[in-house]
Amino acid sequence: MIQDLRPLMAPRSVAVVGATERAGASAGYVMRNLIGMNYAGRILPVHPRESSVFGYKAAPSISALDEAPDCVVIGIGAAHVAGVLQEAGQRGTRAAVVLASGFGEVGETGAALEAELTEVARRHGMVLCGPNCLGLVSLANGAALYSSTLDPAMKRGRMALISASGASAIALGNSGRVGVSALVSMGNAPVTSLGDYLRWFAQDPETDVIGLVIEGIRDPASIASAMEAVHAAGKTAIALRVGRSAEGQRATAAHTGALAGAAEAQAAFLARVGIVDLPDMDSFIEAGVLCSGGKRPKAGAVAVVGVSGGGVAHVTDIASEVGLHLATLAPETVERLRVLLPDFATPQNPLDVTGAAFGDPNVYRGALDALDADPKVAVTIAAQDAPPGLSPAIAAEYSGIAGAVATYAGNTPVIAMSNLSAGVHPDVAAAYGDAVRLHGTRATLTAIARCQAASRTVTWHGASAGDAPLDAEPGPINEAVARAIFAEIGLNGPTGEVAATADEAVAIAERIGSKVAMKIASPDIAHKTEAGGVVLGVEGGEAAGVIFERIMASARAYAPDARLDGALVQEMVTGGVEVLLGLVQHPPFGPGLVVGAGGTLTELMQDAAFDLLPIDAERAEAMIARTRLAKLLAGMRGAPAADRRALVDAMVALSEFGERHAAAIEAVDLNPVAVLPEGKGIRLLDSLILRA
Amino acid sequence: MIQDLRPLMAPRSVAVVGATERAGASAGYVMRNLIGMNYAGRILPVHPRESSVFGYKAAPSISALDEAPDCVVIGIGAAHVAGVLQEAGQRGTRAAVVLASGFGEVGETGAALEAELTEVARRHGMVLCGPNCLGLVSLANGAALYSSTLDPAMKRGRMALISASGASAIALGNSGRVGVSALVSMGNAPVTSLGDYLRWFAQDPETDVIGLVIEGIRDPASIASAMEAVHAAGKTAIALRVGRSAEGQRATAAHTGALAGAAEAQAAFLARVGIVDLPDMDSFIEAGVLCSGGKRPKAGAVAVVGVSGGGVAHVTDIASEVGLHLATLAPETVERLRVLLPDFATPQNPLDVTGAAFGDPNVYRGALDALDADPKVAVTIAAQDAPPGLSPAIAAEYSGIAGAVATYAGNTPVIAMSNLSAGVHPDVAAAYGDAVRLHGTRATLTAIARCQAASRTVTWHGASAGDAPLDAEPGPINEAVARAIFAEIGLNGPTGEVAATADEAVAIAERIGSKVAMKIASPDIAHKTEAGGVVLGVEGGEAAGVIFERIMASARAYAPDARLDGALVQEMVTGGVEVLLGLVQHPPFGPGLVVGAGGTLTELMQDAAFDLLPIDAERAEAMIARTRLAKLLAGMRGAPAADRRALVDAMVALSEFGERHAAAIEAVDLNPVAVLPEGKGIRLLDSLILRA
Repeated sequence: MIQDLRPLMAPRSVAVVGATERAGASAGYVMRNLIGMNYAGRILPVHPRESSVFGYKAAPSISALDEAPDCVVIGIGAAHVAGVLQEAGQRGTRAAVVLASGFGEVGETGAALEAELTEVARRHGMVLCGPNCLGLVSLANGAALYSSTLDPAMKRGRMALISASGASAIALGNSGRVGVSALVSMGNAPVTSLGDYLRWFAQDPETDVIGLVIEGIRDPASIASAMEAVHAAGKTAIALRVGRSAEGQRATAAHTGALAGAAEAQAAFLARVGIVDLPDMDSFIEAGVLCSGGKRPKAGAVAVVGVSGGGVAHVTDIASEVGLHLATLAPETVERLRVLLPDFATPQNPLDVTGAAFGDPNVYRGALDALDADPKVAVTIAAQDAPPGLSPAIAAEYSGIAGAVATYAGNTPVIAMSNLSAGVHPDVAAAYGDAVRLHGTRATLTAIARCQAASRTVTWHGASAGDAPLDAEPGPINEAVARAIFAEIGLNGPTGEVAATADEAVAIAERIGSKVAMKIASPDIAHKTEAGGVVLGVEGGEAAGVIFERIMASARAYAPDARLDGALVQEMVTGGVEVLLGLVQHPPFGPGLVVGAGGTLTELMQDAAFDLLPIDAERAEAMIARTRLAKLLAGMRGAPAADRRALVDAMVALSEFGERHAAAIEAVDLNPVAVLPEGKGIRLLDSLILRA
Repeated sequence: MIQDLRPLMAPRSVAVVGATERAGASAGYVMRNLIGMNYAGRILPVHPRESSVFGYKAAPSISALDEAPDCVVIGIGAAHVAGVLQEAGQRGTRAAVVLASGFGEVGETGAALEAELTEVARRHGMVLCGPNCLGLVSLANGAALYSSTLDPAMKRGRMALISASGASAIALGNSGRVGVSALVSMGNAPVTSLGDYLRWFAQDPETDVIGLVIEGIRDPASIASAMEAVHAAGKTAIALRVGRSAEGQRATAAHTGALAGAAEAQAAFLARVGIVDLPDMDSFIEAGVLCSGGKRPKAGAVAVVGVSGGGVAHVTDIASEVGLHLATLAPETVERLRVLLPDFATPQNPLDVTGAAFGDPNVYRGALDALDADPKVAVTIAAQDAPPGLSPAIAAEYSGIAGAVATYAGNTPVIAMSNLSAGVHPDVAAAYGDAVRLHGTRATLTAIARCQAASRTVTWHGASAGDAPLDAEPGPINEAVARAIFAEIGLNGPTGEVAATADEAVAIAERIGSKVAMKIASPDIAHKTEAGGVVLGVEGGEAAGVIFERIMASARAYAPDARLDGALVQEMVTGGVEVLLGLVQHPPFGPGLVVGAGGTLTELMQDAAFDLLPIDAERAEAMIARTRLAKLLAGMRGAPAADRRALVDAMVALSEFGERHAAAIEAVDLNPVAVLPEGKGIRLLDSLILRA
């Protein structure tokens, strides 16, 4: 259901329940913030005993208010919240902020209170921020429904920040680096959750970039659907996942009790819906600044330009570490730079324009223009240190270069970067004008690389929930049954048939055409080897006929009363690349698929790719390309190339299987799968299904 | 030779050649800086036509000065420098700064000028900063022999900065984050180089930490020896290597022409001499701040404490990414925290003390004290965001916590960290008092991790230069000769002997005790297989006797006139772990040793460890532990454990071999080396020696 967040984000009137001038009271903070941020609507304090709060006439209850408030902020203890919410709902209020903690995050009693709250909100069709939150602030209208002190001078801008962590909301909202349009501290969010907020900001004219601080993801389908709207609006969502390491997860689990999807599943989800995944606060902030103008850099190679050889070399080092590729310049660009630059400069990328640029800013501008004209360059990074401690005289020199960046008017985006996070001298910063200006080599380059790489479409729309039962008796699934199940979707083990006679054995072996293994087929003989009923490496039809007779004779001698159906004549699989294929459930994202090096290499290399279902052929190829498997499949050290296409087909088939039976399976483990030389297909050598 | 840098770093008088008031002249900058930084010595301008510069009486030449200057700064064109230097040397001056470029960095003519300059300096026993540099600044005495504008208000502190890059020197020297005691822009440094400066700062009472910006390392032995003095003084050297990526290297090569050792060899060198290797400018600066008090954190697990669950989880995520380990708290610590903290807090590491700490700073202090008492905690990181944009009211709340850190008096170091590089609100910063305060999660944690991990001793003292010739004919070394060479140092291939008779073949095969390969031994038969002279997989003595006769008969039939010595009976090596061992020259560091997964895994895993010679057993073990080889050797999936000790012995033997023959070899490649099960040793299956 699409929630209307207007009364929450842009309320015409706000009732503040628990409003008081007493220091420390959460509703008191809200009153001060509404007043301090010049809230454009009507402020309606509610308090059982106060008649006036900060000069605003107070009512003893919601019911006693002169008007039905558009939104109610409830700043009283957890036990009393549902009653107030009910009262507001009855008056027609459709939005609430619940600040108190003591709900789902603190055990059973709290969970019951939260369930009650949720039920009341749902019954009245209310949107609800919290509980267990700081509230929210919309800067455009001053709706500061927020229970921590706000600085009226806080940096305004075009990033909306939605945070699971109150402290992070405060820190990021006041970084001084990135200006914000709104702050939302979501809290437990049982009613209005991340997807709902995303959908709101997708259409919010004040917002270009939506910054998410995520501890766990609970409403992936809603987020996916909202991201369609975000992309359609040409906006960017960026995320910082906290608690993504095993140790870090322990800390957030203790903190919120939220069920966080495993880190790799979270990452796959963000990638599939096109949310830019940033690894730390600094790169998160720089990505926020980068996308705040509404222009996100397109994918492609970068150019690096600066006035110092050491400086551009350093940038290049970090670029290669974070996965940015430097463009190889076109010959015309090189020629143009050769003419432009002094003789001792080298016209290449990274480009050191040398100190000559200080004397003549046209040199720097000329270099930017030359790079702009190069079709291989998607983004130019103007790397320029000019830290706050510079003398005014040196700052003036750097300002000349900054001016060249400021007046650049090409099509290729130019990003001015300071290697030092400590920032830029104020004179130089001013000279950059409206140019995008980022801080810190690693943070900046990481932000650019992640923004470039992130998808602008949604390819995941909800967890697969196919409830087709497995074609197997209840209970654990043995390997033979698993083999049959997978054979039905085209994933076969070694080929083989039971021969009833020596002649049939000859024919089957000849059909298989390679070495075969032969095993007595009898429902009564459990220990086939002891019975002399197993022979490996039989080569050729003739031999198979001879061995058939020998096996039958041995079995007869071993167990004279056993029923003998004949002998299984089965392909011996040798060679090929051993691959691991699997399905694994990651609530709330549903099943995902794993592919990686198989057999003994699985543990050694620990190099597998994961993605959520569904996996199509293109996505399967991309997964293979992310692992060293790609190298193995191509045929190393003279080995023939393996049947990569058959592997891709198998991945797609397994994905479809996983979708169909999503509710029935906990995990599938196919390891090893032998990927034979091109045209020969794959063979499942071991398969395991765990039921849900 | 140990150079005396006193006249360069603390000159009593400075002649400035080319001194003028004209804007843009490098000697003019020097004059302005000496005056502006209140240089404590005598300023002696030298100019052919000026009689007075900035009020200082000028002389037309060095010879015409009233006194012999302690140091001379030469600010004139490259072609005229050697003559002036010669004049100064004759007057007894023992230190010079040469600012001009146009020397070794620009081709043959420049290189000749640099050679001349070097010769003059050597002849007169002079120390020399440059050429092609900005010069240097010693802040204690105001000796600002520096040709770029300095801010007299620049942040003073206890880090000496030595930079190959002028721009980096300016940027880092004025970061505003770390205070400096001295700045040195080394330039081409043919006379006085990194080792000399390190040795000076090791004894400089103004300096605790020496920051190096390195583009290439040219005097490793001198640096190693100087680092002994740095360690002895209890100081720390930190380095930022620029141009360490392949693409970045291209940029610095274009820039300075310096021969940079390959990145991995540089890294190994820094590790061996105990220089802390930082990956970017931000972590370099934070390491500088961290070590500026002279207290470098000891190795060991860390504790993370904060007032936000999300915040400490984020810190924990990054900690695990940069290789910091979080301590598991002792039961007594957990109990102490349980008593101290509110019920809803979880006493663990990372530790969220919750918002309760805002109300009562003793909670935070109590937590720091509890962690101090825990023997497992080597460093406590107090993670606290309080960015510059906070409102004064919130800043005051954070100041309470900062005050708790400021008054902490335990033994375990506490490092206050802001997750945001943007820094800390000035009120909060003030409340931290003298506490070590670092910025940026990733930069801070990287700095701590690298400082903890770096050695405090020197284990490399110069490139091996052993000139023992190889025991081989001139020209390329064939495999048989290589095998013999390695056998002499105890690295053997498969065991085997030539049997002259069938009986001998039986005896040899029985001694070997496993399957053997048999090959005709004849100086006249090149194509042994064609001659029917090769049989693999012979099992047992009896079979070996039979095969011997068959091989001899075949060979006789194939080549009736050939001399037949008998048959080589050789162990068939099966199983074992395939390892790559090698030696490789990395000028100027000399040979290093490589160990990694061998055979087909070499290319697939690209997971090898490198270290410079010499390698002792402990170091060999550490190298193995750095690779996945450790896992393979331990015996995966039921394989027997391999003879790790034999591998270590082989590495040590190969290291000794490399030292002895350092001048004779370019590379050694032993791949694969089979490491057999424990007690069975190793076998070289392929070996290659390339001569220098």
